[in-house]
Order: sequence, then C-alpha cells, then structure tokens
Amino acid sequence: MRDHFEIRDHDAAGRIGRLEVPRAGVTVETPALLPVVNPNVLTIEPRRLAEEFGAEMLITNSYIIRSTDRIRGRVLDQGLHEFLGFDGAIMTDSGSFQLAEYGDIDVTTEEIIEFQRQIGSDVATPVDVPTPPDVDRDRAERELETTRTALADAEAADTGDMLLNAPVQGSTFPDLREEAGRHASATDLDVFPVGAMVPLLNSYRYAEVVEAVRAAKRGLDPDAPVHLFGAGHPMMLALAVAAGCDLFDSAAYALMARDGRYLTVSGTEHLEEMEYFPCSCPVCAEHTPAELRQMDGGGTADRSAEELLAEHNLHVTFEELRRVKAAIRSGDLLQLVDRRARGHPAMLDGLRTLLDHADEIERTDPVSKDAFFYTSHESARRPEVRRHHDRLSRLAVPDRLLLTESDAPSDHEYDAVWRVKPPFGPFPRALSETYPLTAEVPERLDGAAQVAAAEGVASLADANPDSDLTLGHDDWAARALDAVPDRVETENLRHLGR
Amino acid sequence: MRDHFEIRDHDAAGRIGRLEVPRAGVTVETPALLPVVNPNVLTIEPRRLAEEFGAEMLITNSYIIRSTDRIRGRVLDQGLHEFLGFDGAIMTDSGSFQLAEYGDIDVTTEEIIEFQRQIGSDVATPVDVPTPPDVDRDRAERELETTRTALADAEAADTGDMLLNAPVQGSTFPDLREEAGRHASATDLDVFPVGAMVPLLNSYRYAEVVEAVRAAKRGLDPDAPVHLFGAGHPMMLALAVAAGCDLFDSAAYALMARDGRYLTVSGTEHLEEMEYFPCSCPVCAEHTPAELRQMDGGGTADRSAEELLAEHNLHVTFEELRRVKAAIRSGDLLQLVDRRARGHPAMLDGLRTLLDHADEIERTDPVSKDAFFYTSHESARRPEVRRHHDRLSRLAVPDRLLLTESDAPSDHEYDAVWRVKPPFGPFPRALSETYPLTAEVPERLDGAAQVAAAEGVASLADANPDSDLTLGHDDWAARALDAVPDRVETENLRHLGR
Ligand SMILES: [Mg+2]
Ligand SMILES: [Mg+2]
Ligand SMILES: [Zn+2]
Ligand SMILES: [Zn+2]
Repeated sequence: MRDHFEIRDHDAAGRIGRLEVPRAGVTVETPALLPVVNPNVLTIEPRRLAEEFGAEMLITNSYIIRSTDRIRGRVLDQGLHEFLGFDGAIMTDSGSFQLAEYGDIDVTTEEIIEFQRQIGSDVATPVDVPTPPDVDRDRAERELETTRTALADAEAADTGDMLLNAPVQGSTFPDLREEAGRHASATDLDVFPVGAMVPLLNSYRYAEVVEAVRAAKRGLDPDAPVHLFGAGHPMMLALAVAAGCDLFDSAAYALMARDGRYLTVSGTEHLEEMEYFPCSCPVCAEHTPAELRQMDGGGTADRSAEELLAEHNLHVTFEELRRVKAAIRSGDLLQLVDRRARGHPAMLDGLRTLLDHADEIERTDPVSKDAFFYTSHESARRPEVRRHHDRLSRLAVPDRLLLTESDAPSDHEYDAVWRVKPPFGPFPRALSETYPLTAEVPERLDGAAQVAAAEGVASLADANPDSDLTLGHDDWAARALDAVPDRVETENLRHLGR
Repeated sequence: MRDHFEIRDHDAAGRIGRLEVPRAGVTVETPALLPVVNPNVLTIEPRRLAEEFGAEMLITNSYIIRSTDRIRGRVLDQGLHEFLGFDGAIMTDSGSFQLAEYGDIDVTTEEIIEFQRQIGSDVATPVDVPTPPDVDRDRAERELETTRTALADAEAADTGDMLLNAPVQGSTFPDLREEAGRHASATDLDVFPVGAMVPLLNSYRYAEVVEAVRAAKRGLDPDAPVHLFGAGHPMMLALAVAAGCDLFDSAAYALMARDGRYLTVSGTEHLEEMEYFPCSCPVCAEHTPAELRQMDGGGTADRSAEELLAEHNLHVTFEELRRVKAAIRSGDLLQLVDRRARGHPAMLDGLRTLLDHADEIERTDPVSKDAFFYTSHESARRPEVRRHHDRLSRLAVPDRLLLTESDAPSDHEYDAVWRVKPPFGPFPRALSETYPLTAEVPERLDGAAQVAAAEGVASLADANPDSDLTLGHDDWAARALDAVPDRVETENLRHLGR
C-alpha cells in the first residue's frame, strides 16, 4: 500500500525500514535522523553530515529559502542539492512552524508545494497548523479542519515523483490525533509527521509524547512511515522508536551547541560546568572540556568550540541511532528503553506510559527473540508477559495440576506439574526452552514480577474453572498472593524448606 | 594516615582521589583504570595508552618477566619504564594469579618483591593466595593465614619509595573479608586490592562482588585506596566505584578483542553478529562491523581487526571512567548505577545488594547535591531517603499535625501542615527547597516510593508518640498504607477530590 516504505524488522512497535525517495534516487534506512540544516548558516557542511556522520537524509526549510532574497534565486537556479552540496534525500518544511510562532505566513499550501518542487525538494510539506498542547477542544478541532484542507490541497498538486508529508495534528487530544491519523492515512500522501511535539519535548512531557504517537499510530496504517517532527535529542530516540516512530530531525545539535550545551543519552550538560567528557567521539577523544572552553576566547583556532560541540552532539545522536537499530535487530529494544528511562523521571513516565499500550505493541513484537532480560519492575509489564498470559487462557489443563517455582516433587498425586517463573507465571515444562520463558531474571525478584506471575496463574485458573490448581511459590509478597484466585491452593515453598 | 592517597570528592561510597606514586614521580587521579600490559605482547603500545587513551598508570606482571628468559635481562637492564616506553606509574603483579591457576609457583614474596624493586616497579605485590569463591571455610581461613604471612614479608622488605599492595582475600565469606581488610589496614602497606574477584565477575555474580567489596571496606580504613583486582568491564565500573573501589585493571580490552568481542556499557557483543557499532569512538566512527570483519581476511591492512577492537574496548572503558568521575562531581553516581543496572539482571542484583548497605553508604554521601532524580523503584532505597527518615525521628512536632501531599487547606484546625513527598515522606514546608526534597519525581509514582514515604510517616510518628497525626495521601497502594502506624489517621485525597 505504501509501496515506497518497506518494513524489514520489528521489535516492540519499533522497526527497521527502507524509505524509497524516488526524486533523490536513494533509499533511506529507518529509523533515520535528519539533521536540520539552516540554509543561511551551515554549522556543519552537509557533505560532512553524509561522509562523517552517515546522514542519508536532511531537512531544511523552504519557507526560509523563499523569504530570503539573498539565496532564493540561487537555490531556484542551482537546485537544493547543489546549493547544499548534498547527494542524499532532502525533506523541506513549509513554514508551518513560522505560522505557529507568528500567527500568519504569506504563502498557501499550493504555492509552497510548487516552490518546493521547483527547488528540487525530495519530500515536501503542506502548510498544516501545528496546534500546541493544552488548547481547548474547539480550537484543536477547528485547526485540524484547516490541516485537512492543506492535505487535500497537497493531494491535488502536481508533484511528479516528489514525496509529500501528511502531518498529523490534534494537540493533546488522543481521539483527535487518532482521527487525524486515520484521515491522513486515507490520502495518497506519503510520510506522516506527528506534529507540534516541540512544546511537549521542551518541557520533558514524554508521557504525552508517547500518548500522541500511539494515538496517531492507531489511526495510521501499520505500514505508514511516521516522523516525530522536531524530535532529535538522543535521550528519547529509543523510546520514540519503540512507540513506532521512523523518522526524526535534529536542530538540537546546532541550537544547543550555540548555547554551550552538550547532549548525552541521559540529558543535556553545560560545557561551562563539565570537567570530563563522557564520550569518546573524535571531538571528545581529542579535547577536554577545559580546552574547548579556552578556544572560545582566542581567535586563532581554525574551528570554534561551538562547531566542535555541534559535532559531538551529532556524533552522540547518530551513535544512539545505531544503538537503536542494533537493539531492534537483536530484539532488545525494550531493554534499551528501560536503560534510557533512568536518565530522567520524565523518561520513566514515558516508559510507564508506553507499557500502558503493551497490548498494541504486542501485535508487532516478534514471537521469538534471543533473550528476555528482566531488568526492572517495568519489565513485568512488557508485551511478552501479556502475550504469555493470553496464551495461558488457551492452554488445556488436567484435573489436578501443581504449579511450582521449585523442581517437581519426586512423588506426588497430581496429573501434571508445571513450572512457575516470575514474571510470566505457569507453563508446561515442555515450553521451558522457548522464548520468552528462557528469560534471565535477577536472583532478587521483586513484587512486580511476583504480581505478574500471579496474574498468569489467575489467567490459567479463570480459563479452567473445573481444574484443581495448587501453587508452590517462593515467599511471594502479600499483594502477589492477593492476585491469585482464592480457589487456587497456595504453599510457601520457603516454609516447606524446599 | 595513608598520606599518599587524598580523597577530593565523595558520592555514595565512590570518590575522586589522588594517588601519589613517589617512585614514578606522578600523581594518579582515581578512579583509575590500569590497562594490563602483557610484557610479551604489546597489543597497543603503552605510549599510545597514555597519549590517546589517557592512561596514567598501567599494570604488568613481574612473574612473567622473571620467568621469560627472552626479556628478563633486558627489563633488568633498561628498567620497566624504558622497556615498556611508559612514563606514568607502573604496578606489577607477583604471580599470585599463576599460583591460583597452577597451584604452585617458584618464587617467594621476599624474592618477587626484590625483583619488582630491581626492575623499577612503582607499586609491587606480594605472593598472596587468591582463594576462589565457594570453597569451604577451613580452606578460606587457612589461605588467609598464608596471605597474612605474605603481607608481613612485604612489610619487612627493603622497598625504598616503591608502594606495596596488601591484597584482601577471604573467598565468599564476608566476615573473613572484613577481618582481612582490618588486618591489611593495620600494616604499613599502601594499596588494597580486593582479590580473587575474576571467577565472580566471569559468572556475572555482581551481587557477591558488591558484598565482598563492602565487607573489605568495613575492615579497611575509610581513606585506604581500594583496587578491584581483575575488574575492567565498563558495565560494572559505576557499580564498583559506588561501592567504594578506586583502582581497576583491564585485561578484558585485549583478551576480548582476541576473541572478536566488543565491549559496551551494557554487555559484550560479538563482532561476528554486529551490524551497527553503538559507539562513536575513532574506531567506530571510521568503520562498520562489516569492514572490520573483512580486514581479518586480507593481509594488506596495516592494522588488524583485533587491534582495532582492542582500541574500541579501551575507548569505551575510559569513556565510562570519565562518565563515572563526572557523575561523582555532579553527585549523580547512583543515578548512573541505576542506568547501568538495566544492562543485565545480574547488574540489577548488584544494585539491589549495594542498596542493602545504604546505611554504610550514607556516611560518605554528600548532604547536599544538585538534584535527586527518582528513576526507578530502587531509587526509594537510596541513602538520601534513609537519611531523611533518620532526620524525621529527630524533628519536633506540634500537638496536631497534618501531613499532606496536596497544598495546605485554606482553613484548618491543625497546629501545622507539613508536605509529604514520596519517597521521602513528610517534612516542614521550610525544608522544601533543600536537598534532597527538591527531588524530581515521575508523575506516575510507584508503590515503592509510597512505601518509603509511609516509612517516613512511621519514623515521625514513632518519635512523637503524643502528637496527633493526620495523613492526606494521593491514592497510595494498600501496602504503603499498611506501613503507616494505625494511630495516624489517613485520608485519600483523590476521594476527597483535592
Ligand atoms: Mg502524489
Ligand atoms: Mg614500606
Ligand atoms: Zn563526544
Ligand atoms: Zn567504539
């Protein structure tokens, strides 16, 4: 259906894909990070973005080019690729951001899409309305109507083989985001940015970012390429990919550098306050923070501290992108998200919100992977646990069944003895060597794992009302035992000395 | 007391220090990582270890030098520093490891210390007995007696300004480790390696590594420099530093590279299976895994894949060391450990074990830092929470006190209204802007934070048996309310609509 986007691998709701960009004659691997290039200020030459950082696609702003007398003619004349010196794919924004900032712009969707076509953009954007968070519902609905018109105007335009963005808006109303996603998906447009995320991202409202993405995804086709517009901080890439985003753009690398800020996968530091670089990129391997600070004073250095900071910021971002891709391939993306959730309390909110949607995520999560690592209380809420509980409700059970965390007793009167392993719960021994039951779990299990295992017992008991179930558990917490149905007999193995 | 070691900064039980090494004429900043240099195979030239990786100290094996006819004379002649081409501090091992491996070596402590002095070692090691884990207690005690004799022989030796290691053994018996620490600390030896950790590290028994370190530290002087012998995987550096270790040595960087293994802060990968390098060190920024695999075939490359892998392994290890130091300076070492605990279930066991010792760790944890981030259930067990609960038991309380998670009611009959903030619990509003009560916590608080807050309420109630306490809570879990003493009246604010 979206024949220019092919999904190769899934993990959680994340995927590795190939976005074909016909006008550029290239195929871009996703998740992809598009450095934002200001056509007036090339902080790092686009050629270097490709050669040194591996950028396959970048994004620049057609509205700024159109409004800037000094460069407009040259870009129209040379075309965007020659002007920027970049052979990869180039996406262009339309001025929607300026519309949101200043309330008005002097261009229509029809005009700006034609301009984008003329300058040789590979992926163009209509003039949608990026409704900010927390507005009243009337405004969100009204502006969504305008965005719909912009999408219709974009569909009607003569665009040749240029791809087109279909932004998904709806402010902080999940049902409006979902409806907007459904509408955008029904157009013949190509790439689906979830818009107006910057205010949420700037105020660390990651839980609401996840809600917006999940809502948009519920409306969009599963095979639609999704762009998280304005998102490029390495801290949240893994979370956003796990929620289902494929494209990102980063202005942060340059903007932050201008303010002396240094990005890491767990937050943002100030060069002014740093004594050590927690990085070994070519910039950080060759300089100390003190050296970079000194460069700002002297005018003799051939490169400025700002430029070097921007390079570090891009290195750490592309490094995280490679880490995310590697995690998808090896099926441990949710473990990476678990690590990143410890960078900031708001990231933990983001993970907890993502796991509210474990049922949705389960649909694209591979049935078999290398290993499930239980690395936090949140691991108990992973889709694999949910899936196992669903499966338990479909398993046939004999009349008298012992479920136990210990080995099977040598002598017993049960019809069968199943293993119990938190956070999954019970399963026939024959399944022991299958994913996810091969999970590595800590020796010191927590209450969350026990509660999840108890819910597995409940799932089995509920589906088999006529079976007699006995549970041997290793000293579970009271709240786990509360989750076991009353009719299941329980024995504390620790008291039995087993 | 240990006048060659000065502690500059503390965080948890971790510290930044300066180890003065008089024979080398240098001062080494700790935590320090000592690359292990095989005198027969210089995988990376020691000069490059200093210049490109920032190694201030390295370790090599005097027993191997003494046993290798091909090099012994040259090292005796030139001295170790010229032989290796390294100006920094050089520590030498004694053959203890070989003793543990092969059961017997042909040298005494007296002889090997004299040899170390002759070759110009800066920190020498006696022939202690590295008792492995899980042996019976008799053997652990017997071998500890031999180690004690080795320490006495080292003390008696004429060593000039060469420093001496005093290894702390004791297998997996915490009381023996503590006793061994106390004994070592009473000698006039200088550096204190916690020994025989390799079998535990190799089998991911991080909880027991933490127990061994904490036990040794209970016996050692607080200002003794502690070396975690044989530990250099970047995954566990932060945990080990937070537990109180100052020196590390890594043979892993070279040994792993020989097997095609690639270190990361969350585990070990196999080059054979990698598609992306999750790193931007000079090696990984310039090569893809596929390129490195191809190098192995051709003989034309001027550097081998093994050498490049070793360089990456060292880069990622030194990068983590800088990250650990930065975390100590900014007071967020336990947040870094929290992140690293999500790399493997065994690392989570390590963190959970470290927090069993929150009382010990609290003693060196700074009273004020920048910010407390609540990033996991484990955050509820941090020393700052413990300290606040202790403080609550010392605060004077009026007759009628309202403790509430919401704002103070505009109209009330209490003598005072205090805030309640999980995981800390109650406090007078005047303390709101003091550490750690300025903590950033997730919007979605968990049961562990509520239970800890309830324990704070209990601490206050127990110390003030004559006061009437009322608690307004935001829908706490049953197990948190169970931890509130019965005589404290509770109100669920969510039910009250506040
Ligand atoms: Mg079209
Ligand atoms: Mg002496
Ligand atoms: Zn860097
Ligand atoms: Zn690397």
